[in-house]
Amino acid sequence: MSLLESPTSSTTPTGDLLSPEETYRLDREHVFHSWSAQGPLQPMVITRAEGSHVWDGDGKRYLDLSSQLVNTNIGHQHPAVVAGIVEQAQRLCTIAPQHANAARSRAAQLVAEVAPEGLDTVFFTNGGADAIEHAVRMARLHTGRYKVLSAYRSYHGGTATAVNLTGDPRRWPNDYGSAGAVHFFGPFLYRSAFHATTEAEETERALAHLEQLITFEGPGTIAALVLETVPGTAGIMPPPPGYLAGVRELCDRFGIVYIADEVMAGFGRTGRWFAVEHFDVVPDLITFAKGVNSGYVPLGGVVISDAIAATFRDRPFPGGLTYSGHPLACAAAVATITAMHDEGIVENADRLGREVLGPGLRELAERHPVIGEVRGLGVFWALDLVSDRETREPIAPYGGTSEAMGVLVKALKANGVLPFTNYHRLHVVPPCTTTDDEAREGLTALDAALTAVEEHLHLA
Amino acid sequence: MSLLESPTSSTTPTGDLLSPEETYRLDREHVFHSWSAQGPLQPMVITRAEGSHVWDGDGKRYLDLSSQLVNTNIGHQHPAVVAGIVEQAQRLCTIAPQHANAARSRAAQLVAEVAPEGLDTVFFTNGGADAIEHAVRMARLHTGRYKVLSAYRSYHGGTATAVNLTGDPRRWPNDYGSAGAVHFFGPFLYRSAFHATTEAEETERALAHLEQLITFEGPGTIAALVLETVPGTAGIMPPPPGYLAGVRELCDRFGIVYIADEVMAGFGRTGRWFAVEHFDVVPDLITFAKGVNSGYVPLGGVVISDAIAATFRDRPFPGGLTYSGHPLACAAAVATITAMHDEGIVENADRLGREVLGPGLRELAERHPVIGEVRGLGVFWALDLVSDRETREPIAPYGGTSEAMGVLVKALKANGVLPFTNYHRLHVVPPCTTTDDEAREGLTALDAALTAVEEHLHLA
Repeated sequence: MSLLESPTSSTTPTGDLLSPEETYRLDREHVFHSWSAQGPLQPMVITRAEGSHVWDGDGKRYLDLSSQLVNTNIGHQHPAVVAGIVEQAQRLCTIAPQHANAARSRAAQLVAEVAPEGLDTVFFTNGGADAIEHAVRMARLHTGRYKVLSAYRSYHGGTATAVNLTGDPRRWPNDYGSAGAVHFFGPFLYRSAFHATTEAEETERALAHLEQLITFEGPGTIAALVLETVPGTAGIMPPPPGYLAGVRELCDRFGIVYIADEVMAGFGRTGRWFAVEHFDVVPDLITFAKGVNSGYVPLGGVVISDAIAATFRDRPFPGGLTYSGHPLACAAAVATITAMHDEGIVENADRLGREVLGPGLRELAERHPVIGEVRGLGVFWALDLVSDRETREPIAPYGGTSEAMGVLVKALKANGVLPFTNYHRLHVVPPCTTTDDEAREGLTALDAALTAVEEHLHLA
Repeated sequence: MSLLESPTSSTTPTGDLLSPEETYRLDREHVFHSWSAQGPLQPMVITRAEGSHVWDGDGKRYLDLSSQLVNTNIGHQHPAVVAGIVEQAQRLCTIAPQHANAARSRAAQLVAEVAPEGLDTVFFTNGGADAIEHAVRMARLHTGRYKVLSAYRSYHGGTATAVNLTGDPRRWPNDYGSAGAVHFFGPFLYRSAFHATTEAEETERALAHLEQLITFEGPGTIAALVLETVPGTAGIMPPPPGYLAGVRELCDRFGIVYIADEVMAGFGRTGRWFAVEHFDVVPDLITFAKGVNSGYVPLGGVVISDAIAATFRDRPFPGGLTYSGHPLACAAAVATITAMHDEGIVENADRLGREVLGPGLRELAERHPVIGEVRGLGVFWALDLVSDRETREPIAPYGGTSEAMGVLVKALKANGVLPFTNYHRLHVVPPCTTTDDEAREGLTALDAALTAVEEHLHLA
């Protein structure tokens, strides 16, 4: 009897051995879910997944425009990655972090190879939050300073330091003095904090704001600046030309460690290995997770500049974790990165964004007044949904949701699309392996769902 | 060509496809290791493991008395767990935390089943540190209070909250105001903080100390008390009779959430599913990781009392992570817990401790003056090593190491044993599946290594 088989269940057509009903019942009895009131939850049972699709407990197929939590960059159940996991599981699942292992060595080499020049060392963690924790620790000890700057409209993870650096409402219930976090406003022309009207003006004013903030906080008190290269959950806002170069220059001038958070933007999501490539900047530390192995096995980490690595050559690094450089997780990364190289998956994400998703979403915006702005690149797109294009009034409040957003999600699911939404935004974030046909199928479903929202809002 | 195969390597007799030399070279070039100065590291390459043994790059076999970082409770490469991972990898590696999945549902059910009555809900994390982070968050929001009590001589993890609660030197370089952590002294008769001479006196005085500390800190300011049921890395100190019952009573009296940290002590390590069973107490939250699936796939979590789960029925829990309830990690837990039930593995750990390891270590103590105290239960033992039994002077300083400890480690490795040491202590922490013959083989190697240390210290 399979270990997942219930005494009361039989093998279902989906190949899953605990019945969907039993899965749902046990979930509601025993599973405590992230970021939610537990009472009202009605989780979708996912029994199967392949490529760009998942199947629910009724056998209904969905096109996954969410990549789950924007992590399955290589799609679901990629055969080479599954094979890599199976091979490593049969060879050696786990060793302690103080030892060395083939999978860990190779994964570090492959990550360093796709990172910018001068970032050659990798500290592996279990995910993005602990990557941020350890990157901040490195920066604090490297500089001897404490405070860390981060942006409003950002997400950096759920552990204490990471959630305090976060610039969204998930920080609020966890904020008891902010743990040295100081927030600034990043560039975002569509909802400019600087009353700018052009990209050049937004860049100039956002940098002036940041420089002022550094001056008044005291440059000598600031260890690091943490910034999502393209802010993700907060709205997918590619920075305007010159902004990140300006950030790099300010960090250099004031001796601040520049940490690029690429947990969501890295490993193909923007059509590059790391999103910083688009902007020609080299950070001091890069945090990653998700796409490094598409989340098939929990893995994250920090790519470390040679200068910061040198700080810990003779002085102990006071951080670590039992599963740092976990062989099974690293083998999944080796298989993922290798398949992405072999199959041109990063290039596909880039092309799909330029040729299909970008044009397709902009075409939808021409016909749908509820779309205030289309932003993005690669397979990393946001629709900023508004009830009025003049006032740019969002169709759901900051930190909340609305009936209109409910209508959108329901219409997409009814049309066989699994969406990613946040407040008043729909994010179109499929796997990097998505085909043109699948992308077009998604755009068609979107078209209908946007019409439903507009009818609900009497915009049609 | 296998993905781990190097262009310059060939398959080695150990079945590992990146050569040990290449593994070592790439590790030193690209891998940043936990809790270490990177320069002097000379990591052992582990190419293979099975049951109670691991093999290094030269093909030398070691008896693993460390369980790596005290996590491979079921031994290395247990066939049922490997099969469970392979099966799940081929079915469905990952889904987002908001959905439901058979592996996640079943794992939560099995964990809740072996937890004490009244703790029925499981929040899954990636490891022990984030389990502590989220448990503390639950306690703070459940009570509306901020401060958290924890013990000196403890380890709770590497992220901000967890490392501040930690009571060992790894906290020091990360301590910028302690994040609301207040430390107390736990019971430890051999090195009593209370000048006690009997267990009963130690219990009474440790509880009086704790009550005083709560009184002076202000009971209404304290959200939680976090305590390893049997402190692990800090020295494996089973609490004396009555102590944990007294802690439970103090927490009840003052409305403090009692968090039992069983990341190391749980899942068979002490010869029980959870170590609290030895002491007849029921905590409000239990943190776990390591043994839940022997670390074959990164997994941790919090088992939650019904009262605390109810707090988040209608109010959102402001915490979470991308890999919460990861299907592959959960499938490994399902296979592990099932195999532990089927094969009586918890019972074996209990019996081995009572019949072989305990008597064997105490017999060594009779002949080896360097052993100041033997402490432990199940497969969870410490030798407190001293240069003088009268003064109880440790053979290495707190937070450091010594030549004598170097002699011990070298002798053990030469005799084919992989040890776990901390400061002046040797921990004997083999898998729960260790056979009597393997345990005796370990005791024999220990005997010789202790003689070598005594010769070095001129104690012989």
